[in-house]
Amino acid sequence: MLLGFGAIFYIGASTSPVIVFVFSVCIISFLLSIYLTKWVLAKDEGPPEMAQCSTRLGSTTYEALLDFLCHGIYDKKQCMAISDAIRDGAEGFFRTQYGTISKMAVLLGLVILSIYLFRSTTPQQESSGLGRSRSAYITVTAFLLGAMCSGIAGYVGMWVSVRANVRVSSAARRSAREALQIAVRAGGFSALVVVGMAVIGIAILYAIFYVWLGVDSPGAMKVTDLPLLLVGYGFGASFVALFAQLGGGIYTKAADVGADLVGKVEQGIPEDDPRNPAVIADLVGDNVGDCAARGADLFESIAAEIISAMILGGTMAQRCKIEDPSGFILFPLVVHSFDLVISSVGIFSIRNKGDLGAIEDPMSILQKGYSVTIILAVLTFGLSTRWMLYTEQAPSAWLNFALCGLVGIMTAYIFVWITKYYTDYKHEPVRTLALSSSTGHGTNIIAGVSLGLESTALPVLVISVAIVSAYWLGHTSGLVDESGTPTGGLFGTAVATMGMLSTAAYVLTMDMFGPIADNAGGIVEMSQQPESVREITDVLDAVGNTTKATTKGFAIGSAALASFLLFSAYMDEVATFANVPFNQVDIAIPEVFVGGLLGSMLIYLFSAWACSAVGRTAQEVVNEVRRQFIERPGIMDYKEKPDYGRCVSIVASASLREMIKPGALAIISPIVVGFVFRVLGYYTGHPLLGAKVVAAMLMFATVSGILMALFLNTAGGAWDNAKKYIETGALGGKGSDSHKAAVTGDTVGDPFKDTAGPSLHVLIKMLATITLVMAPIFL
Amino acid sequence: MLLGFGAIFYIGASTSPVIVFVFSVCIISFLLSIYLTKWVLAKDEGPPEMAQCSTRLGSTTYEALLDFLCHGIYDKKQCMAISDAIRDGAEGFFRTQYGTISKMAVLLGLVILSIYLFRSTTPQQESSGLGRSRSAYITVTAFLLGAMCSGIAGYVGMWVSVRANVRVSSAARRSAREALQIAVRAGGFSALVVVGMAVIGIAILYAIFYVWLGVDSPGAMKVTDLPLLLVGYGFGASFVALFAQLGGGIYTKAADVGADLVGKVEQGIPEDDPRNPAVIADLVGDNVGDCAARGADLFESIAAEIISAMILGGTMAQRCKIEDPSGFILFPLVVHSFDLVISSVGIFSIRNKGDLGAIEDPMSILQKGYSVTIILAVLTFGLSTRWMLYTEQAPSAWLNFALCGLVGIMTAYIFVWITKYYTDYKHEPVRTLALSSSTGHGTNIIAGVSLGLESTALPVLVISVAIVSAYWLGHTSGLVDESGTPTGGLFGTAVATMGMLSTAAYVLTMDMFGPIADNAGGIVEMSQQPESVREITDVLDAVGNTTKATTKGFAIGSAALASFLLFSAYMDEVATFANVPFNQVDIAIPEVFVGGLLGSMLIYLFSAWACSAVGRTAQEVVNEVRRQFIERPGIMDYKEKPDYGRCVSIVASASLREMIKPGALAIISPIVVGFVFRVLGYYTGHPLLGAKVVAAMLMFATVSGILMALFLNTAGGAWDNAKKYIETGALGGKGSDSHKAAVTGDTVGDPFKDTAGPSLHVLIKMLATITLVMAPIFL
Repeated sequence: MLLGFGAIFYIGASTSPVIVFVFSVCIISFLLSIYLTKWVLAKDEGPPEMAQCSTRLGSTTYEALLDFLCHGIYDKKQCMAISDAIRDGAEGFFRTQYGTISKMAVLLGLVILSIYLFRSTTPQQESSGLGRSRSAYITVTAFLLGAMCSGIAGYVGMWVSVRANVRVSSAARRSAREALQIAVRAGGFSALVVVGMAVIGIAILYAIFYVWLGVDSPGAMKVTDLPLLLVGYGFGASFVALFAQLGGGIYTKAADVGADLVGKVEQGIPEDDPRNPAVIADLVGDNVGDCAARGADLFESIAAEIISAMILGGTMAQRCKIEDPSGFILFPLVVHSFDLVISSVGIFSIRNKGDLGAIEDPMSILQKGYSVTIILAVLTFGLSTRWMLYTEQAPSAWLNFALCGLVGIMTAYIFVWITKYYTDYKHEPVRTLALSSSTGHGTNIIAGVSLGLESTALPVLVISVAIVSAYWLGHTSGLVDESGTPTGGLFGTAVATMGMLSTAAYVLTMDMFGPIADNAGGIVEMSQQPESVREITDVLDAVGNTTKATTKGFAIGSAALASFLLFSAYMDEVATFANVPFNQVDIAIPEVFVGGLLGSMLIYLFSAWACSAVGRTAQEVVNEVRRQFIERPGIMDYKEKPDYGRCVSIVASASLREMIKPGALAIISPIVVGFVFRVLGYYTGHPLLGAKVVAAMLMFATVSGILMALFLNTAGGAWDNAKKYIETGALGGKGSDSHKAAVTGDTVGDPFKDTAGPSLHVLIKMLATITLVMAPIFL
Repeated sequence: MLLGFGAIFYIGASTSPVIVFVFSVCIISFLLSIYLTKWVLAKDEGPPEMAQCSTRLGSTTYEALLDFLCHGIYDKKQCMAISDAIRDGAEGFFRTQYGTISKMAVLLGLVILSIYLFRSTTPQQESSGLGRSRSAYITVTAFLLGAMCSGIAGYVGMWVSVRANVRVSSAARRSAREALQIAVRAGGFSALVVVGMAVIGIAILYAIFYVWLGVDSPGAMKVTDLPLLLVGYGFGASFVALFAQLGGGIYTKAADVGADLVGKVEQGIPEDDPRNPAVIADLVGDNVGDCAARGADLFESIAAEIISAMILGGTMAQRCKIEDPSGFILFPLVVHSFDLVISSVGIFSIRNKGDLGAIEDPMSILQKGYSVTIILAVLTFGLSTRWMLYTEQAPSAWLNFALCGLVGIMTAYIFVWITKYYTDYKHEPVRTLALSSSTGHGTNIIAGVSLGLESTALPVLVISVAIVSAYWLGHTSGLVDESGTPTGGLFGTAVATMGMLSTAAYVLTMDMFGPIADNAGGIVEMSQQPESVREITDVLDAVGNTTKATTKGFAIGSAALASFLLFSAYMDEVATFANVPFNQVDIAIPEVFVGGLLGSMLIYLFSAWACSAVGRTAQEVVNEVRRQFIERPGIMDYKEKPDYGRCVSIVASASLREMIKPGALAIISPIVVGFVFRVLGYYTGHPLLGAKVVAAMLMFATVSGILMALFLNTAGGAWDNAKKYIETGALGGKGSDSHKAAVTGDTVGDPFKDTAGPSLHVLIKMLATITLVMAPIFL
């Protein structure tokens, strides 16, 4: 272990002192995250009715479950291990799912290997030590490493969640503040691990390649070309994240919708009632979908963004003939190292200062932490730009880039605010939506769809302003190429993206907080704690819903801002591979326009398949649950036990099956389109046609994907909260006709906001990374 | 009258013999359409219970209405004039609506005038007689004429519909075939008028400008620049069509949804029951929305497409230095003249050969007529290309263009087929959707949304193939510019679009057939005709639903194919105005990409506002109807009369109010975006920035608009037919839970398919024409 560390530090030291800094920060934050876990795990698991027992959910535990849940009789030996059952289900599905994904990853790795082995290289590339076979192995290794890290990121998120939930509910018996603190620290653990792993993974690869290839020594490759070797890492991360999000999203929502449709609507039993045969599947789904998938999602966001920014930084440094280009290349790693530091400060700023109970709003505590993080982010970002981006050629450039970072940070802040405005029931839009439920199911759906479509407007305006202003700031930074043309524009948008993501670890913490609080609420409810404890977890749960929604806003905002960065990285990569300039994507060329048309269509088809997968699987669950209620009439009187296992296995196998189709579509279609138009271009005499068509496809898909994801996420969140608003007693309250209409809206919103929407975030970035890796096919 | 004709013919003759041909065909088709009206109006109006009487819907007629509808007692003097009430309501709304639209048109005309008066012109333009003031007056005149003709097109559609319905229902008592024939001929009347008016309007403007400006005489402007003067006509047509579609669409669906939600769902009374206070508003809406709006829609499609093709033809002819360029410019007019001829043949091919009753499917009769028209279209298209596009420079070019036309005709055919596949309950998708209703409202909506999203895939693939192959056919036509570069590609896509629209008059006939059959069915139902008569109109109604859906597919397909044409026309126009080449829209430039982002967002926001307008107005109707049922409890026992007038006036005033916001958005946003980026470009030294950003906005908006419209139309149609499928007795039939869920889907689909979707067709083309007209602002 220590030897390994030593070797890594030695390699890092021979690359750049910056790498040593990055390594140190990452390792410190890993140590910190271990401290956080120990702290959380040291918290008590509460009374036996909350604790997990050694007995697994087997045939003998049903009676205990019923006793436990419905009669308040606890037997420590026999006690029902709900929490255990959930954990087993989640970890079991995770294993099967990631088994499938690994097989696909290995297969794809072989495909990439053969593509790279048969591509044509220039003599220049061969002489710089980067021949076919070496670049093939590098890309495949990076791909597999990225895939593995992405998987770990997902597992970490789930691992802590299934352990923290019971501790949060236990703490809620004592104080709201303590419960909040545990949930935040548990979330912080996985956030630090996820972000740290993305950063250190890239840093290690960079350092190893640097030393191995003898970069910058005479005749070898230049350091500015080094980041191109890392694209495999980003693609591996996106690849796993896509399937994790699809599989997890289908699982959680199919179980949820299926359980609700029969349990709540047809049988009139409450949510999470043990008589519902789909209840365990539903609870498992929360962990599989929310925690595991989101960890992988943010991991790949950060990885893709760091690599693209490194590519652009390298290109720009080369064009401007900057003496030491490594500052521009390593800048993203430094920004995210500081992210780890300041987010830790933010996480630790939430302390247990005695119980403030219902007096202080937990949301405002979280936001105070966010404000602390943001203020520190502004400072450290300024520091990083001065440290890394100062160059004598343009002495004030770093200041312009610091302002770009500020643009990004502000964009993040505004995005969070807009999402809150459209999905929080304190504001006009959700109230109007709730009101429309009073005239029926139909008007509720129409209003929700309209709300979702409308909610795309402000974010797009903000992103537009951010892109243009960051580009302009970069453009006027004073960095010019040999002919005197300003070249800093693209790097400006890259820096703005980094600014947006410079608080990623804290935002991820808030996101992970959501499902933990949600689960804790469920455990408190099921173990029949006193009203006061429930109130505390209810508030935490509500806050968790808001943070989950706002994180989605943040994720899609950063994807939107990063989009431009990713296109440019792709174009740089193509130019390097093909050894011809490639800096235009002219949609006035019919084939290129058609590429755009196909790209937009891809988003619609992908969303369709993701939603219909949930619908189909939910129908299977509905039929199974209906069958159980008919075949075992005693279930309703607690006389017969439902077969939870069947629902779990139906959902698990269906989501594994259903995730393949949309996932394969996303991976195969850009490759097919690029290849077809490459062949077409070959016969019509347009050498770069395939690459151009893919670029247009990528750009149109990104735009459509951003809009579609905003629509799906916001509509889903608003429907959910409109239902919650009515459940607070407004417009007739629970059980009224308005409530029924609102439940319909919520059901529709479920696959929107938790399956299709978040999958689109990943899809956008996966399209960018797949085109980066597959570029040799299109040429 | 005769003098006017003489003058027009004289001017035409001094322009080109082709113009004389076009004039003649149009006038003959007008005479033919007069014959068709006379023929339809000569048909009997049936027994008094069907006939319209002179008494208007006043305070004294309610008892008569009740007698008439519910007890079968007819008094010729007192008989209720439902048909009259509908006609009055429709024509009243039409007057108010078009009053508002005219005022806006005049205002916008003044804006255009001032823009053109203050724009900068080149000395060359001044010397060719096309100075500021002259081009300003020409553009404004064309705009107002286009707006007026578009209004007439809408009126004509409605005029014949409200008169033919009662005659169709009367004929249904005698024979299905006769009823079909009357409906087709009534539809044919408006189709011939609409298409003929579009063609002759452009031909007259062309001829007048030709003579007035002394085109082609030394020093004057060249004939190849003449089509640019016609863009105002296209914009006027789109402008009116947009508001007609929005206002009509909101009216019809708000009344429909509002009436159904209280009447059908809450009170459990059947559709079109006289006790429902919103019933008259609902019936009026059918005419206002379907007939008036669709007439204006297809009118502007044809006008925009003809003008763009003329511009492209002119540019290409000039580049290739073709001796007589007028063939390429006037080609679209010839194609549509033939369209009038062959569609008339198609219409007259549907004859009354004795009653075949239920033996022959009316759909197959209509499709036989369509096949006749399509076969003739292939022949006449080949003829037109040989006549107009033969040039000695490239002797085989006409053959390539004929093949382009064939591509377009085939695209039309495939589009109609795909739409049928996704919306007809004989096929898999709608059956699956119906099945998903059996598990609840939620799964029905999820399945419908998925179906709609998925249905975008095949059309996009077809359009992609059509664009690329038509471009390639044009490219290899042998037409080259001075430097030997092939230049026929764009014109190839233009010719394909013309091919697609070459059967427009027949398709419009089938479309107009829909609402007439629908209304006829309503009248038969209300006047309690025998079962056998009902069966006939039911079949006709069902066929009408299918033709309505397929026409939407046709309309969006032609919009998609025309999109490329419209971009190119815009770029030609900008190049001419600015006197610099403009043939690239490079989305790798951040501002241009942002333009695209904003364009896509515009589509989402527009759809949101269109849908929410319906939702809001429907809620107003629901509240009014509920109020009437509470305040007048006798309504349900026929003891008190509902106040139909209030619902009519609520819907009318709300739809006039609600159409403004989305309409204004569509018109103002491209202008604002273009102007802002023009200013930005001025300060950053990019002279064409505004024009480029607008081009990207237009292209992204078109792509998003096509996809969104396909999604909305198909989802709406599928929901409607899934409901109809269940009503045939499947899955529990009427009144079952599946049926309730299906009704919810249908309600959601209403604003999708009849308000937002068709408005998007118009929006796409209006964006193209507005950018054509407003180009001077962006420079």
